Amino acid sequence: MKYWNKTLTDMEEYISGEQPAGGFIKLNTTENPFPPSKSALDAIAKRTSEALRVYPDAKSLELRKIFAEANGLSVENVFAGNGSDEIFTLIFRGFIEKNGLAAFPYPSYSLYYTLAQGNGIKYDRVQLEDDFSYNMDKFLEKKYSLVIISNPNNPTGTYCPVEKIARFCEAFDGLLVVDEAYIDFYGGSSIELVNKYSNIIITRTMSKSYSLAGLRVGFAGADAEIIRGLMKIKDSYNVDTLAQAGAAAALLDTKTFNSNTEYGIRSNKEYLEERLTGMDFFIVPSRANFIFVKHNSVAAESIYLKLKEKKILVRHFKGERQSEYIRITIGSMGDIKALCKELEAIISE
Amino acid sequence: MKYWNKTLTDMEEYISGEQPAGGFIKLNTTENPFPPSKSALDAIAKRTSEALRVYPDAKSLELRKIFAEANGLSVENVFAGNGSDEIFTLIFRGFIEKNGLAAFPYPSYSLYYTLAQGNGIKYDRVQLEDDFSYNMDKFLEKKYSLVIISNPNNPTGTYCPVEKIARFCEAFDGLLVVDEAYIDFYGGSSIELVNKYSNIIITRTMSKSYSLAGLRVGFAGADAEIIRGLMKIKDSYNVDTLAQAGAAAALLDTKTFNSNTEYGIRSNKEYLEERLTGMDFFIVPSRANFIFVKHNSVAAESIYLKLKEKKILVRHFKGERQSEYIRITIGSMGDIKALCKELEAIISE
Repeated sequence: MKYWNKTLTDMEEYISGEQPAGGFIKLNTTENPFPPSKSALDAIAKRTSEALRVYPDAKSLELRKIFAEANGLSVENVFAGNGSDEIFTLIFRGFIEKNGLAAFPYPSYSLYYTLAQGNGIKYDRVQLEDDFSYNMDKFLEKKYSLVIISNPNNPTGTYCPVEKIARFCEAFDGLLVVDEAYIDFYGGSSIELVNKYSNIIITRTMSKSYSLAGLRVGFAGADAEIIRGLMKIKDSYNVDTLAQAGAAAALLDTKTFNSNTEYGIRSNKEYLEERLTGMDFFIVPSRANFIFVKHNSVAAESIYLKLKEKKILVRHFKGERQSEYIRITIGSMGDIKALCKELEAIISE
Repeated sequence: MKYWNKTLTDMEEYISGEQPAGGFIKLNTTENPFPPSKSALDAIAKRTSEALRVYPDAKSLELRKIFAEANGLSVENVFAGNGSDEIFTLIFRGFIEKNGLAAFPYPSYSLYYTLAQGNGIKYDRVQLEDDFSYNMDKFLEKKYSLVIISNPNNPTGTYCPVEKIARFCEAFDGLLVVDEAYIDFYGGSSIELVNKYSNIIITRTMSKSYSLAGLRVGFAGADAEIIRGLMKIKDSYNVDTLAQAGAAAALLDTKTFNSNTEYGIRSNKEYLEERLTGMDFFIVPSRANFIFVKHNSVAAESIYLKLKEKKILVRHFKGERQSEYIRITIGSMGDIKALCKELEAIISE
């Protein structure tokens, strides 16, 4: 690896959920089973034209305006990125000194660890409580420059209330990032805190609640000074023309959004939880479009492997605490019923 | 700027070409005046469907295969990025130590300077010769870890032959990046050197010769070990589903490509050069889809401003040497004639 630098050599590779070539029921990557907004598809089709020969709007102005309006912010408080992944990378590049220390919860979204490593940033993993709930005081025990939490937390689904986050912002001298990738399914966003605290960044994505994982659009809401910094350090044109158009139209289509989240995911989730409880699964209380579960007698890895044989993918993470569980994405009713049928067979073996 | 780190604070902001709201003839951002491949638009339309609810292929495998095949490489020698911008950023993050020294030509594409700064990398600007040609020996005068050249060079259009690049690879102990964003208009790529040298990365883009600036797709061709490093350090899903589909189809449509580059841009460029020569302009020999010109008596900045008043945008860069010139993108024949009419008026004032 002659030309790899120390950062690249030392980092661990991020392992995303398997994306197999078809024939599988995919309940492993928190994708939404419902189709995206029809008007988003129409908006993309309209821009699929000669106009692609010119560059996108480097500032994603229209899109940011729409997101700002929908969330009670001004446009100078909003940044648009190539997925929220890009936003995390930009935060590591521009908002923590190379000798600073970051902190992330554990178990949580392992991409935080990977991206910190990939940008040469040291971090602590701060353990969630026994029930996987947040004790934000733990992030005050050392002098951290940057804390990222996922709310609801991935993979556990646990939620940290707005009041706790507000109190943390008051007590914390560093920068707090709240990754709200999964907030839309049950609400309870902390985005209003952006108008009150200058040390909070809220990130969002179109990948989950808007069923647009294929487009790669994420947002950051924060103090104008932070947004200016993100604009300064980002690549010249980071969100492409079609993604800007599709995301803007999807944000405006509140009807599809409500029907996919409230009536769609929530009711499927309730159904699945009822079935799993009946099968002796323990379910961590979740406010996301996935649940983190373990069975009273059958090991998580064994369930994962047996389901995979049956062409159903759920997610099993290696590592302390989390390896006892599997994370199941809330799929369509057909997917859920197929899953339950196989689970019943597995646990009665 | 309480939360900005030293890198973000110290860097200069990148200034991209103006993208005004219509009514302008845009000859300032090296966009292609001809429409993209019809089959690329069809391929995008086909993927604009429910399928957007799932993630893109994180490895862009199909797209990379097609690029590899078209360029005499194996798929493990090819990386796909969110524009070549992303690829430069990844190179700065993973392929030069924080205390290493990079070198870029001057005048050249200022994004190299900005991205190096934005990733905390120190660099030298190595002057091109008086006629803006490359003297690669100058990049051997100090111990550089990383050299990026633009070939043909932006904004001068000057070209460095493959033999010179090959000789440099032999003599150089660091990593050479050859940004071939503009190579397609006249050919002469160094991409075959990827099979011979492990210290060269060739970058390409769909933005110019393929008229797909709106899609954000770039490529790197390099030794498999370098490509593995890029895959390791990139964000999880960097190229969206529609961009992958559109770029793949465009690469396969060699007919549109040939007609847009060889017959389109080249013949328009010859026409413009003839007209400008007749108006007493000095033209730097260019192998790109733009020309770098100065007038024998009227100052470049004045020409730029007067054209802007007439709703024609060309590019005028600040800074030593280059501020004496304007860069004109080769537009459609209508754009060129409109430009020449205004130029004739300006120089005869």
